[in-house]
Amino acid sequence: KQYRIAVIPGDGIGKEVMPEGLRVLEAAAKKHGVSVHFDHFDFSSYDYYEKHGQMMPDDWKEKIGKHDAIYFGAVGWPAKIPDHVSLWGSLIKFRREFDQYVNLRPVRLMPGVPSPLAGRKPGDIDFWVVRENTEGEYSSVGGRMFPDTDREFVTQQTVMTRTGVDRILKFAFELAQSRPKKHLTSATKSNGISITMPYWDERVEAMAKKFPGVKWDKYHIDILTANFVLHPDWFDVVVGSNLFGDILSDLGPACTGTIGIAPSGNINPEGDFPSVFEPVHGSAPDIAGQGIANPIGMIWSGAMMFEHLGEKAVGKSIVDAIERTLAERTLRTKDLGGNADTTACGKAVADMVD
Amino acid sequence: KQYRIAVIPGDGIGKEVMPEGLRVLEAAAKKHGVSVHFDHFDFSSYDYYEKHGQMMPDDWKEKIGKHDAIYFGAVGWPAKIPDHVSLWGSLIKFRREFDQYVNLRPVRLMPGVPSPLAGRKPGDIDFWVVRENTEGEYSSVGGRMFPDTDREFVTQQTVMTRTGVDRILKFAFELAQSRPKKHLTSATKSNGISITMPYWDERVEAMAKKFPGVKWDKYHIDILTANFVLHPDWFDVVVGSNLFGDILSDLGPACTGTIGIAPSGNINPEGDFPSVFEPVHGSAPDIAGQGIANPIGMIWSGAMMFEHLGEKAVGKSIVDAIERTLAERTLRTKDLGGNADTTACGKAVADMVD
Ligand SMILES: CC(C)[C@H](C(=O)O)[C@@H](O)C(=O)O
Ligand SMILES: CC(C)[C@H](C(=O)O)[C@@H](O)C(=O)O
Repeated sequence: KQYRIAVIPGDGIGKEVMPEGLRVLEAAAKKHGVSVHFDHFDFSSYDYYEKHGQMMPDDWKEKIGKHDAIYFGAVGWPAKIPDHVSLWGSLIKFRREFDQYVNLRPVRLMPGVPSPLAGRKPGDIDFWVVRENTEGEYSSVGGRMFPDTDREFVTQQTVMTRTGVDRILKFAFELAQSRPKKHLTSATKSNGISITMPYWDERVEAMAKKFPGVKWDKYHIDILTANFVLHPDWFDVVVGSNLFGDILSDLGPACTGTIGIAPSGNINPEGDFPSVFEPVHGSAPDIAGQGIANPIGMIWSGAMMFEHLGEKAVGKSIVDAIERTLAERTLRTKDLGGNADTTACGKAVADMVD
Repeated sequence: KQYRIAVIPGDGIGKEVMPEGLRVLEAAAKKHGVSVHFDHFDFSSYDYYEKHGQMMPDDWKEKIGKHDAIYFGAVGWPAKIPDHVSLWGSLIKFRREFDQYVNLRPVRLMPGVPSPLAGRKPGDIDFWVVRENTEGEYSSVGGRMFPDTDREFVTQQTVMTRTGVDRILKFAFELAQSRPKKHLTSATKSNGISITMPYWDERVEAMAKKFPGVKWDKYHIDILTANFVLHPDWFDVVVGSNLFGDILSDLGPACTGTIGIAPSGNINPEGDFPSVFEPVHGSAPDIAGQGIANPIGMIWSGAMMFEHLGEKAVGKSIVDAIERTLAERTLRTKDLGGNADTTACGKAVADMVD
C-alpha cells in the first residue's frame, strides 16, 4: 500500500519547517519500507488569498478529501488578513467539514528542553490532552441586540450534543485504557457553568461505566490549570471541551518548556475523512524568512500522522530521533539554546532516524 | 466613623482561619486608631443548612446588606451538600444580588513561598487579575432538548451586556492607571469564540481611548495561560470575563506557589452594596478540625477589605506584616514547610503589624 499525503505548507514559518518535516518523514518511511506519496498544495495561505480572494479553491474537498492524511504547516498572518478569514477559511473548515472531532496533543517534557517548572525532568511530565474539536463553545450561534445603545448585549451559545460529547469521551477513555496508568481526567466547570458542564459530567460518568479498567477523576478548569503547574505528574489523559481543551493544550506544552516544538493532530478516528497534522506553533511572521524556525513541531506532527495511519514503528522511530537530536545542544535551534538553523536541525533528525 | 463588618466564617477551615483574620484586623485597626465593629453570622454554612434547609435566612439581605463590608471564610462541603446548593445559595447570590461585579485577586510572589516556576524570586511576579463577576459564561440561560435520545443536546448562553463589560473594563483601566507600569492585558478568544469575544475586544478598544496613559495588549486565553507560566513578569493588570478571570485567578496564584494564601475581593465599587472579602482556598474538609490551616489568605483578604474601605495604611501594614511573617520559617504553617499551627501563624502576623 502507498499512503497519499496532502502537503499544505501555508504561511510564514510553515513554509520553512515543512521541507524538514518531509525530509524526516521520507527518511523514516524509507528505513521502514513504507511507501508514501506527497501531493503539494499552495492554498490555505495568505499568498493564495491575495491571488484568489479566498483561502481555498471551491473544490478544495475534492482536491484533498481522498488523501490518507493532510500534513499542514501553519496558517494566519494577522497583520495582513484577519484571523476569522484565514483560520475560519481553512483550519476550522477542515475540522468541521472533515469531522475531525478529536484534537490530540502530547504534553511531554523532552530532553534538552528546560522546563519552566522548577525541578521537573524528562519523564516527569508525559500525558495527552484530548480536545473536542467541532462543537461546544466554538458555536456560531448567537447575536447582538440594541446595537450602539446602553441596552446593547451580545449572546453566544455553547452547544453540546450527545453524539459530540460521547464520541470524544469514548476516544479519550480508549486512549487511557491503552496506556500503562489507565487514568483519565475530565475538565469541567459544573460549579459555575450550570447547564452544559453538568451535562458533560453526566456523560463522563455514563461513559466511565463502559471502561471499568480506567480510573478517572475530574477537576474544575480553574484548579485544573493550577494543577498543571503544581502537579503535572498527576496526569495521563486529560479530556476537555473545545475551549477547555484549547486552553489545556497550550498550557500543557508551556509547562514542558516551549510550545515551539509541540505537535497536534486533528483527527477523524473513523477515517471517513483525512485527518490534519500540524505543529502547535503558528506562522510566526516575526521570525519568518530567517531560517531559524524550530522544525521539531512539524516533524513530531509527522510522527503522529504515521501513528494515526497505523505505522506505529515509523512514528516511534521519529519520536526517538527527535529525543536524541534535542539532547545535543549543537543540533538544537536557537530558541532552545542551540546554534543549528532550521535545515541543520531537520537534517540531524533525519540522520538519527532508524 | 466606626466601620461595621459582617463576619461569616462558613464551613470547614473557614471557621479556623476566621479567628486569626479577626485577630490581625483588630490589632491593625487599633494601631492605626481605626474603629471597627464586627457582627457575627452563622449562616452560609452547612451547619445552618442542616438546621434550616436553606443556606441563608429569608431576610439575609436585611441582616448584612447595610454593613460596610462582609468578611467571609469559606463555603461548601461537596460530600454533604452539592455545590449548586451551597455556592449558588450564598457566594454567587452575594455576587449577583449585591452587584459585586468586580472579582479582584493579587498574583504576587511572597517571600518564604517557593514558586513552582524555576528561578522566580519575590518581586518578579506582582500583578492583579480583574474578573467580571456577574454575567458572561455564568448565565443560567439555556436548556436541554430531546432528553435520553441520540438527538439529545444542551445549550447554554454566554451573555455580555454593554453595561456589564464597560464597567469591569473601566475598573481595570483605572487600576492600571494607578500603578507604576500602567499596563493592562485583556484576555480574549476572539479567534475561536466568534460573537461574544469580538464584542469584548471591541469594548476594550473603545475603553482604551479614554485611558491614553495606559498601555494595553490582548492575548487569546490559550496562549495567555501559557504566558502566565513562561512570562509572569509581563503582567501588571489582567482583565477577563467571568470564566477567563476565574481560570486566570487560580492559575496566577498557583504560579506564585500556593493558592492556600491568596486573597480575593468581590467588589461593588460604587458602595451601593457591601463587598465580600474571602480567601481563595475553599473549606478544605480534608484538613478541617486539625488546626493546621494556613490563615494567610484570610488575613490578606482583610487587608484588601481595609484598602477597599479607603484605609490604605491599615491594609498596607497588614500586607507588610504578612511578608515579614512568611519570611520566617518557624512562623509559617506546615503547607509552607514551617511548623506553626493556624493560631501561632495568626498571632505572629498580629504581632508584626505596625
Ligand atoms: C466555587 C465557584 C463557583 C467559584 C467560581 O467559579 O466563581 C470559585 O471558583 C471562585 O473563583 O470563587
Ligand atoms: C487559531 C485558533 C482558532 C485555534 C483554536 O482555538 O482552536 C488554535 O488556538 C488551536 O488551538 O488550534
